[in-house]
Amino acid sequence: MKIGTTHLFVPGPTPVPEVVRRAMNVPMEDHRAPDLPDFVLDLLADLARVFRLREGRVLVYPGSGTGAWEAAITNCLSRGDRVLMSRYGQFSHLWVDMARRLGLDVVCHDVEWGEGVPVEAYAQELRADPSIRAVFVTHNETATGVTSDVRAVRQAMDEAGSDALLFVDGVSSIASLDFRQDEWGVDVAVAGSQKGFMLPAGLAILGLSEKALAAAERSTTERCYLAFRDMITANDVGSFPYTPPMPLLHGLRASLDRLLDEGMDDVVARHHRLAEGVRHGVKAWGLDLCALAPRWYSDTVSAVRLPDGVDGAAVCRIAYHRYRTSFGGGLGKVAGRVFRIGHLGDVNEVSCLSALAAAEMALLDAGVDLEPGSGVAAAQAYFRQALAAEGSRPGPWWSATAGPRLTAVT
Amino acid sequence: MKIGTTHLFVPGPTPVPEVVRRAMNVPMEDHRAPDLPDFVLDLLADLARVFRLREGRVLVYPGSGTGAWEAAITNCLSRGDRVLMSRYGQFSHLWVDMARRLGLDVVCHDVEWGEGVPVEAYAQELRADPSIRAVFVTHNETATGVTSDVRAVRQAMDEAGSDALLFVDGVSSIASLDFRQDEWGVDVAVAGSQKGFMLPAGLAILGLSEKALAAAERSTTERCYLAFRDMITANDVGSFPYTPPMPLLHGLRASLDRLLDEGMDDVVARHHRLAEGVRHGVKAWGLDLCALAPRWYSDTVSAVRLPDGVDGAAVCRIAYHRYRTSFGGGLGKVAGRVFRIGHLGDVNEVSCLSALAAAEMALLDAGVDLEPGSGVAAAQAYFRQALAAEGSRPGPWWSATAGPRLTAVT
Amino acid sequence: MKIGTTHLFVPGPTPVPEVVRRAMNVPMEDHRAPDLPDFVLDLLADLARVFRLREGRVLVYPGSGTGAWEAAITNCLSRGDRVLMSRYGQFSHLWVDMARRLGLDVVCHDVEWGEGVPVEAYAQELRADPSIRAVFVTHNETATGVTSDVRAVRQAMDEAGSDALLFVDGVSSIASLDFRQDEWGVDVAVAGSQKGFMLPAGLAILGLSEKALAAAERSTTERCYLAFRDMITANDVGSFPYTPPMPLLHGLRASLDRLLDEGMDDVVARHHRLAEGVRHGVKAWGLDLCALAPRWYSDTVSAVRLPDGVDGAAVCRIAYHRYRTSFGGGLGKVAGRVFRIGHLGDVNEVSCLSALAAAEMALLDAGVDLEPGSGVAAAQAYFRQALAAEGSRPGPWWSATAGPRLTAVT
Amino acid sequence: MKIGTTHLFVPGPTPVPEVVRRAMNVPMEDHRAPDLPDFVLDLLADLARVFRLREGRVLVYPGSGTGAWEAAITNCLSRGDRVLMSRYGQFSHLWVDMARRLGLDVVCHDVEWGEGVPVEAYAQELRADPSIRAVFVTHNETATGVTSDVRAVRQAMDEAGSDALLFVDGVSSIASLDFRQDEWGVDVAVAGSQKGFMLPAGLAILGLSEKALAAAERSTTERCYLAFRDMITANDVGSFPYTPPMPLLHGLRASLDRLLDEGMDDVVARHHRLAEGVRHGVKAWGLDLCALAPRWYSDTVSAVRLPDGVDGAAVCRIAYHRYRTSFGGGLGKVAGRVFRIGHLGDVNEVSCLSALAAAEMALLDAGVDLEPGSGVAAAQAYFRQALAAEGSRPGPWWSATAGPRLTAVT
Repeated sequence: MKIGTTHLFVPGPTPVPEVVRRAMNVPMEDHRAPDLPDFVLDLLADLARVFRLREGRVLVYPGSGTGAWEAAITNCLSRGDRVLMSRYGQFSHLWVDMARRLGLDVVCHDVEWGEGVPVEAYAQELRADPSIRAVFVTHNETATGVTSDVRAVRQAMDEAGSDALLFVDGVSSIASLDFRQDEWGVDVAVAGSQKGFMLPAGLAILGLSEKALAAAERSTTERCYLAFRDMITANDVGSFPYTPPMPLLHGLRASLDRLLDEGMDDVVARHHRLAEGVRHGVKAWGLDLCALAPRWYSDTVSAVRLPDGVDGAAVCRIAYHRYRTSFGGGLGKVAGRVFRIGHLGDVNEVSCLSALAAAEMALLDAGVDLEPGSGVAAAQAYFRQALAAEGSRPGPWWSATAGPRLTAVT
Repeated sequence: MKIGTTHLFVPGPTPVPEVVRRAMNVPMEDHRAPDLPDFVLDLLADLARVFRLREGRVLVYPGSGTGAWEAAITNCLSRGDRVLMSRYGQFSHLWVDMARRLGLDVVCHDVEWGEGVPVEAYAQELRADPSIRAVFVTHNETATGVTSDVRAVRQAMDEAGSDALLFVDGVSSIASLDFRQDEWGVDVAVAGSQKGFMLPAGLAILGLSEKALAAAERSTTERCYLAFRDMITANDVGSFPYTPPMPLLHGLRASLDRLLDEGMDDVVARHHRLAEGVRHGVKAWGLDLCALAPRWYSDTVSAVRLPDGVDGAAVCRIAYHRYRTSFGGGLGKVAGRVFRIGHLGDVNEVSCLSALAAAEMALLDAGVDLEPGSGVAAAQAYFRQALAAEGSRPGPWWSATAGPRLTAVT
Repeated sequence: MKIGTTHLFVPGPTPVPEVVRRAMNVPMEDHRAPDLPDFVLDLLADLARVFRLREGRVLVYPGSGTGAWEAAITNCLSRGDRVLMSRYGQFSHLWVDMARRLGLDVVCHDVEWGEGVPVEAYAQELRADPSIRAVFVTHNETATGVTSDVRAVRQAMDEAGSDALLFVDGVSSIASLDFRQDEWGVDVAVAGSQKGFMLPAGLAILGLSEKALAAAERSTTERCYLAFRDMITANDVGSFPYTPPMPLLHGLRASLDRLLDEGMDDVVARHHRLAEGVRHGVKAWGLDLCALAPRWYSDTVSAVRLPDGVDGAAVCRIAYHRYRTSFGGGLGKVAGRVFRIGHLGDVNEVSCLSALAAAEMALLDAGVDLEPGSGVAAAQAYFRQALAAEGSRPGPWWSATAGPRLTAVT
Repeated sequence: MKIGTTHLFVPGPTPVPEVVRRAMNVPMEDHRAPDLPDFVLDLLADLARVFRLREGRVLVYPGSGTGAWEAAITNCLSRGDRVLMSRYGQFSHLWVDMARRLGLDVVCHDVEWGEGVPVEAYAQELRADPSIRAVFVTHNETATGVTSDVRAVRQAMDEAGSDALLFVDGVSSIASLDFRQDEWGVDVAVAGSQKGFMLPAGLAILGLSEKALAAAERSTTERCYLAFRDMITANDVGSFPYTPPMPLLHGLRASLDRLLDEGMDDVVARHHRLAEGVRHGVKAWGLDLCALAPRWYSDTVSAVRLPDGVDGAAVCRIAYHRYRTSFGGGLGKVAGRVFRIGHLGDVNEVSCLSALAAAEMALLDAGVDLEPGSGVAAAQAYFRQALAAEGSRPGPWWSATAGPRLTAVT
């Protein structure tokens, strides 16, 4: 008997806002109807704004983020191409694995899990080996809660005079962390619907620079379902090469409306504020993040290291069954040694406090020695201060008119 | 720009469970279709089980709880009838007001807000005045968070040899607090859809004993829309005298399924556990409840008294605007002096902790001196202990099969 | 096993438009939240526009249309008041019954079912009896598909120098047929949510002239739940005297947006066009309407008279079970002798053709001698002509840009 | 201003049943939660029952049917493999195109559009060329409304002693037409969610024989996102290799419940009955189907040939804009020369009549000379006869109890 909503704090899928959920609840429609093209063309144009992409285009496939990883490789590269990659978590690990299975010649740098992309090592490789055709970065490693410096990688590429393509996995960063495709010179950016876009899984999204689009015309890798060319030809007239998942497209419309209405800078600031609160809580528990230094801290997911002898799977199991709260478990190398709190999408301060409150109980039950309520108290202090600062700006809720009305409650 | 769900902790309407919400999302249908009667008859039969009513029947009107108050009076009593009532909060106050406006001769006992029904005073009145035709009790006074002893009132009536009808306002008690219509000899029980039934407002529900049904045949009060007779005639063939609000009836079906599946004893126990946790939190803050003694404590709503100089409306305003959390304000005599936390319906332990966490921030911002995190920590301690006891029972989530699967998460 | 949507052609509830249905699917919210008043005030203002009411106000209760009938009487009249009414169908019959039960002194004119309000008889009564305090008209009698001339009644009242109030039951006319509260001098107009407003049942709606509002201050009838005064006091600050059914209010918001966007004149014209098509079909079958002359024809519901020996209940039963189509049966005096096709709300030409197609099969199966397809063909001819005329106006779908796009379908 | 539902008669996506639509409206959940595996394992087991597959397994990918086409090829075949294919419509054409782009050595037989798979030519090829590794059949060609004889192809393969794999595109046949994977010896069956499964697009579904699964272990084609091995490893523990589109999986659960409750034989019979009605209508118009002989007639889609000089795109355009009805246009070689009526999924007799009624008006407006109402009348005659036969079986609606209740309608 499940009573009460299960509280969801995995780093994707994230809670879907009501307005988005309603937008997806549509009857079926003819995807070749004459009024669809306008809808599609506007949608793609607004989607590009979230990538901060003007010079290029975005593509949306029915698929998962993994499908977008594959589309990036099979369209822009050819078997045998030499590429520079690095591994610092389960998801960067899986992308390397995919690249090898798809026939790329991967130069892979392994980094300690808890750090991010090794910019200096990349710089050396790029200077030493001009045959590198693409450089891969996992912008936000969801398994460890580490955000890497994409701009620095671009700078290293430029300094080395590399003409390689820059591939970025932005699945758990785009639409929540700061991401600037044009400005950072990202050629292929990969995203999925179930993270910052606050939708169910089911859309594989790519942001492509003009250079990436040109490369796709030259690739000799066989591909058809995920081929850019077929999608572009159809998109050019506001259509798709096969039946699109219309509910998700309507949901994306509503999600874009909300993101762009809030403004991407404010979206980024909000995720930072919520993450800071959570980190204050973790610190108050006396625990460490998986991310080894503040510059790696992720604003969308915090992976918390557990003391020796405490099983991360047990923490998640207790939280789920006893407290109806879902956290992410440890993956790959850190399985059992961390648990992860997702704080992205449609979350706010009180949601994050409930995550901390539930985590405290599960940690205590699992044998961690911490002061009950301490994490909540530390986050509360931070949030009160942060929101008081917000509140001092003139805003709708602090206005004279709102006040009297509430006072009149009887 | 509203980001993240607004957290709802008013004492009604309460969060609607997903399964109930889905059940209400239906296309329109012919309310005279031949398969409707079976649906209606089963629904009414199961609804009576929640009232623990076998000797009598339940009626459901399109309306609010206030409509059910009026139906109770106009159907079972006649203008000029002498009735015994008491006031100890805004809702008992309003029922007295209605009774007078509808022409009853009300003997009213005023009690300090924070206490409940004055059983001893009732007993004296009943012994002294055999002309009293009905005795009214507000089972759970939502404005003060006070639960009264209905069984004791019945006992007093019996001891006084009264043949009056016993009217009970169970709007914020039925389907969440212990309520036993047959056993307690309640003749007219009034409920609404938006509290323990976890539905939107819109259904006025009455539980009627055989004695109440007989009284309704004798009443001379004019009534038509809310007349029992018309409703009973239609209900007898599984129909309604006018177009019923079908989405709410489908929602009620789903709500009853959940309540009866959980079991009414467990529903009551759950509400008690959640309320206890909240009360531990309030105590840790150093604040008092509006309810003046533990025997009055309500398990569905806690009204918290504020220190002098702190405005309850400001607490609610800050919680709503700054922390996206809705609490109930003070009503009537206690306006501005209390704020109320609803903990009924589809809530669980972590929901209650988030209520306490949000309240702490709003109280601190409003100038209350309390230890941040203290209420959360006190509630956590209680919940951990309570749920560990639950967990030691053999249950689905503690089983051998569930364990390994979770461990296998990668 | 029900396969495929049941096709709904009862004269209420009517199909709910997708956009309205989505709007109702909301989580619960605090009905005393500070941003609710703006929502409520705008809603009531726009609702008045559908009534074409500027001099007065509209009120919305949780209830059914029957509740609105009662609110009209108990608020504006006192027991013993003399009122002029007439009966020409089940719903006018029931209003007379209610008026008597609530203590009015009813002068009732019975008219053959199939005709409407007897204007000349009313005129005579009004000239003869200046003590008449209110005149009642059922604008659209849903049981017989008869629309009455409200404007003519007002004229008769004025010519007789009557200062009586004019009460109009507009449950199945307002928001679909031409209705002009100010212009026609209607004092009390009664509506429900489940007809032209395209919502589920659950809202009792009243449009009130200033004169009606003044009369309500003088009435001595006891009432509380449906009292105008309590509702007005709350509405004045954008609130309600008890918990409102928020999903229906959000649905009403969406419904008003659609009605006002289409424009009330176009709403009326559309209902006329659809009704005309249906009537062409009925005529082609060789059957008669219950309405005895064209001036009584209703544009929201057509009641079709059946040949002797054919049971209307059988027609409905066959349609429902065999063809998954719901029609309205005969009520009261015409039970078994008619069946009714509702064509109001979110319907269009093809919906009406499917109603005719289903009806033809059920009629044939029930033994009616008609030419299969004849009704459909006659309606098609009318619709083709009517829509071609529409199409000759410059419109979005006939534009140059829409054409090529559709041609490009591959 | 769109008034009234747009009537949807494209051959996919098809109308989604209410119960399925409600099932998809879920909040997000942790796809690694411990109770998910049971859900997933049951889902896949029941899905196999729709394929009538016991010896093998089904796989479900986030993707479209095109993705399933590609997964079939890249997993079970290697570049350079010789395969036997045929083209008789746009979709069989596209699969040939994909096979060539993915590097297969395609032996392709072109057949007149309107016929189906050339069994005799296949038999000759198979006898002559033992190097053929796979034989492809488009079971139901959606562009022409042609169903092919898969069983005969299997027989030809067996007679030729071929050990090739049999690939079948069942996108518009599985879950609506008779399909028997085990019995017919189909090795790879491809389906999508948006046709017989009555869901939105977004799931690529494959049914795989043991032989196909073994072949997949030997294929040297690079693949990762759509690799069977990764999916099987995850499925074996009730999981997915990446975040699954949970709303669609919940919808699939509801869809399977309905299909299996109706029974696959009854599902097939219902589609046949509806298609027969539509074909009677088309014949009455004096028009021909694109399918050149009755043995090719498809029970899920009817492509109607237009007289010379009539533009199929105009028919669709008029139907869509003027009559709010979506039909499928002609694709590829028959663009402009046919229009298509989809009659699969959650449709019933009255839906099909409304399709015919709308089509008649659009055809007349586009200049086709036909008798108005003639198609509707012919289909009505067929449906009345067919359903009367159904009705003579003892059923719930013909029972004694249902009758009286309906008779009692007043």
